[in-house]
Amino acid sequence: MRDPTAAKANPGNGFEDFRLGQIIAHATPRTVTVGDVALYHGLFGPRFAVQSSDAFAGAIGYPRSPVDDLLVFHMVFGMTVPDVSLNAVANLGYADCRFLKPVYPGDTLNATSEVIGLKENSSRKTGIVYVRSRGLNQHGEAVLDYVRWVMVRKRDEAAPAPGERMPELSKVVLPAQLGAACPPLKSGAYDTTLAGSSHRFGDYRAGEKIDHVDGITVEEAEHMIATRLYHNTARVHFNQFSESQGRFGRRLIYGGHVISLARALSFNGLANAFHVSAINGGRHVAPLFAGGTVFAWSEVLETAGVPGRDDIGALRLRTIATRDRPCPDFPANEGDGYDPAVILDLDYWVVMPR
Amino acid sequence: MRDPTAAKANPGNGFEDFRLGQIIAHATPRTVTVGDVALYHGLFGPRFAVQSSDAFAGAIGYPRSPVDDLLVFHMVFGMTVPDVSLNAVANLGYADCRFLKPVYPGDTLNATSEVIGLKENSSRKTGIVYVRSRGLNQHGEAVLDYVRWVMVRKRDEAAPAPGERMPELSKVVLPAQLGAACPPLKSGAYDTTLAGSSHRFGDYRAGEKIDHVDGITVEEAEHMIATRLYHNTARVHFNQFSESQGRFGRRLIYGGHVISLARALSFNGLANAFHVSAINGGRHVAPLFAGGTVFAWSEVLETAGVPGRDDIGALRLRTIATRDRPCPDFPANEGDGYDPAVILDLDYWVVMPR
Amino acid sequence: MRDPTAAKANPGNGFEDFRLGQIIAHATPRTVTVGDVALYHGLFGPRFAVQSSDAFAGAIGYPRSPVDDLLVFHMVFGMTVPDVSLNAVANLGYADCRFLKPVYPGDTLNATSEVIGLKENSSRKTGIVYVRSRGLNQHGEAVLDYVRWVMVRKRDEAAPAPGERMPELSKVVLPAQLGAACPPLKSGAYDTTLAGSSHRFGDYRAGEKIDHVDGITVEEAEHMIATRLYHNTARVHFNQFSESQGRFGRRLIYGGHVISLARALSFNGLANAFHVSAINGGRHVAPLFAGGTVFAWSEVLETAGVPGRDDIGALRLRTIATRDRPCPDFPANEGDGYDPAVILDLDYWVVMPR
Repeated sequence: MRDPTAAKANPGNGFEDFRLGQIIAHATPRTVTVGDVALYHGLFGPRFAVQSSDAFAGAIGYPRSPVDDLLVFHMVFGMTVPDVSLNAVANLGYADCRFLKPVYPGDTLNATSEVIGLKENSSRKTGIVYVRSRGLNQHGEAVLDYVRWVMVRKRDEAAPAPGERMPELSKVVLPAQLGAACPPLKSGAYDTTLAGSSHRFGDYRAGEKIDHVDGITVEEAEHMIATRLYHNTARVHFNQFSESQGRFGRRLIYGGHVISLARALSFNGLANAFHVSAINGGRHVAPLFAGGTVFAWSEVLETAGVPGRDDIGALRLRTIATRDRPCPDFPANEGDGYDPAVILDLDYWVVMPR
Repeated sequence: MRDPTAAKANPGNGFEDFRLGQIIAHATPRTVTVGDVALYHGLFGPRFAVQSSDAFAGAIGYPRSPVDDLLVFHMVFGMTVPDVSLNAVANLGYADCRFLKPVYPGDTLNATSEVIGLKENSSRKTGIVYVRSRGLNQHGEAVLDYVRWVMVRKRDEAAPAPGERMPELSKVVLPAQLGAACPPLKSGAYDTTLAGSSHRFGDYRAGEKIDHVDGITVEEAEHMIATRLYHNTARVHFNQFSESQGRFGRRLIYGGHVISLARALSFNGLANAFHVSAINGGRHVAPLFAGGTVFAWSEVLETAGVPGRDDIGALRLRTIATRDRPCPDFPANEGDGYDPAVILDLDYWVVMPR
Repeated sequence: MRDPTAAKANPGNGFEDFRLGQIIAHATPRTVTVGDVALYHGLFGPRFAVQSSDAFAGAIGYPRSPVDDLLVFHMVFGMTVPDVSLNAVANLGYADCRFLKPVYPGDTLNATSEVIGLKENSSRKTGIVYVRSRGLNQHGEAVLDYVRWVMVRKRDEAAPAPGERMPELSKVVLPAQLGAACPPLKSGAYDTTLAGSSHRFGDYRAGEKIDHVDGITVEEAEHMIATRLYHNTARVHFNQFSESQGRFGRRLIYGGHVISLARALSFNGLANAFHVSAINGGRHVAPLFAGGTVFAWSEVLETAGVPGRDDIGALRLRTIATRDRPCPDFPANEGDGYDPAVILDLDYWVVMPR
């Protein structure tokens, strides 16, 4: 029988608490509503027609506007934080992120993670944990699947490493996997005027670079409202009292906030890229703090057909976000590193109507 | 065939890009939801019973609470920004704004504009563009119709003026046009206690001045969340990096934010003025910046019956909003200009139950 | 016949305007929506599964997720402000607060108050008003009932006291009254993994203290958005222009904001305490201002069965919230007063599954 006075607050997992093959069922399930969608619009301002208008979405073959892909990502991600990354030193990367089914207001999301890799660092103070996380809807159908890896502190430096295995990760999601969350489109009904741009899939070329022009300044209230909305509890985002004594002296903005800002900015140049279908990888190159203004530009890395689909094509994009630096000259790598203004380097697939 | 490498980002229109009679169909259509309504309540705090309670609205003849008139206005306005005012130097005025049908959560709005006037300025660097914009619901019915004029930069100073015509604009919307968006009311069911004031239409007199007493301080996060919610992308509101080098050194708050604040404040004195049915004209006398506290007062300019309606009467109001200045003494014009605290001078019609 | 030029703005009631036994029907009724719920999540980040997931709530016996109890409290409280506490000097206390029926999105709330006690202060400048306030749904059913008392200024110091009576107030709500707003649960279907903790009712003991660990910093935009959402118009929260000249030099955060933050923080240690069923009393020990970081800890004062219910048990909790001070050592009383960091001392009942 359990000690009834056992500590009740969640201390989070240390590196040595993870086991290869361990399956973690995460709390708290979350019904996504039009209220969440409205807040997402208010916080980021995406203007993609499919996610903004039930009438537009309905005309092309969706039952109604689906929930923004990244809002789904953030909510699933948020559920994993208390178990996976409460004691994380750093969020190191993402891979093989695929959106598998559209999510609609009223759907309830929950999440599980499997530990697929572990590697203790040479300092023996931390280790890297690789998890494959999955978001499910109320019917138990997977809506999202992705790998992320984080560096986690050990609770006890003397504890033995819980295993060692580096998972094999795909570098790029294959085009055949890109259409899962996009119903067959009545492409003829896709109104490019209402959508804000006449540029369809065929108008983009690999190597093309697009400056998204606009900049958005971020306030503390905004990123905290967003991150709480996702039930993401990582303390670095919320607790100025402790962060004032920390590495940066201030609250760190959730990296996903930058991804959502970059995606919203990318409307200006990619208005018909209505669906993020996969994320190949991403790197939060530098932190963002409140008061910073985020800019972004994108390069088309690849264009691809989606097997079995003549309604849509896919663009593999690299989107770079910067802090306090417009991007007409496409800042990115510099020497071995990055232009000092770069904060995000994201590699992902979007689909567009043909 | 189009050059596939053509610039993809929207540069906005310069003055010389407009043509008299040109019809512009705007992106992005927008389904209005209870989520948008909740955010509108959180950002402005209007307490009008019809827009707050489905039960109250249902009792007097609406199928449910209609969406706040100004939220509809801001959403339609937001759609017009990328085409009409992205390169605007100044938003000069509004006229003949009429609310034509109620909008309910679930309705989808879209917008078109017709260029009805053009006038190059003597500097030849800018010109004034007059557009009549129309908001439509998913059935193609007009819900809102208004004229606004903006001063727009030319892309090329040497370009010839695209035409010259000053439109005739009505100074005041006629009372016969005021009932369109208000269903026949069961006036007997209008509960003035629940609505917050016993003062009905008959209790107001032309010339009466009302101090709305309260003040609301505005934060950067608030006006940016609001303006993104409307898909209004005007960069002066969002980009502190560029605005720090601009005329004011800081982000400028969307003029419509001040209108919504003044309307919310006006509840204290006009609690039964449940519907803005028309805006005759408005002037953003001075800019508002975050940290400023907005106060407001109103004068009843005129009282009018609405032809064919014995359930409602209309008040023509002049509402003045100020910055950091309470209004017990009704500040307004001063010499040739305004009291230096005045930021908004709005002339509009509201309807009230008789 | 009324003077049509009578002042229209609400001056609020002075102490001498109240009468023993007076019933006040408050404006403005309010339909609660999933939009309000989303904002509440964004502002506080509560992670209780019942209020977050329609699927979870449905599995255990609710028709869908009920609205967070404290959101209901704040909305009803907000309605009472213009009549009860617009001229309040201080919000002195709460007692006998019982949640009587669940509220669901789509329900419309309204509120009434009865004046149950009056006591002029010896200065004759102020008096204490006790009201029993009741929140009702659209069917006229009571959903919430509570007593609060406030110190209110007299408009005219020479006015006679409007009566004198101190009401008898229960110190603690009885366990028999705790189940009203909780439907019979299918306890077997309550999934503690999804809910975030394996600790059920039987795992808690009287005297047990729980540090909720996390801290949340509050921004001006956040508390103003929250308080406007509740239609709470108390000027101290909104008007920096007047508050800059006031006692604190800045806007005061609504005490209910602290209660909601403490409740959200308490998830970490009390994840299955899914329903606040009663508030026995509460004291806002010190004010909170923007920029402060709120921490909290709880003590289990009492554990109790709920008569007639074998699905749930009740914990009587004392939750202490602090400002800029973590709580591993459970700060509370100190000498005759409190640890200087304490801002809230709340005594309430929650129910948990057995």
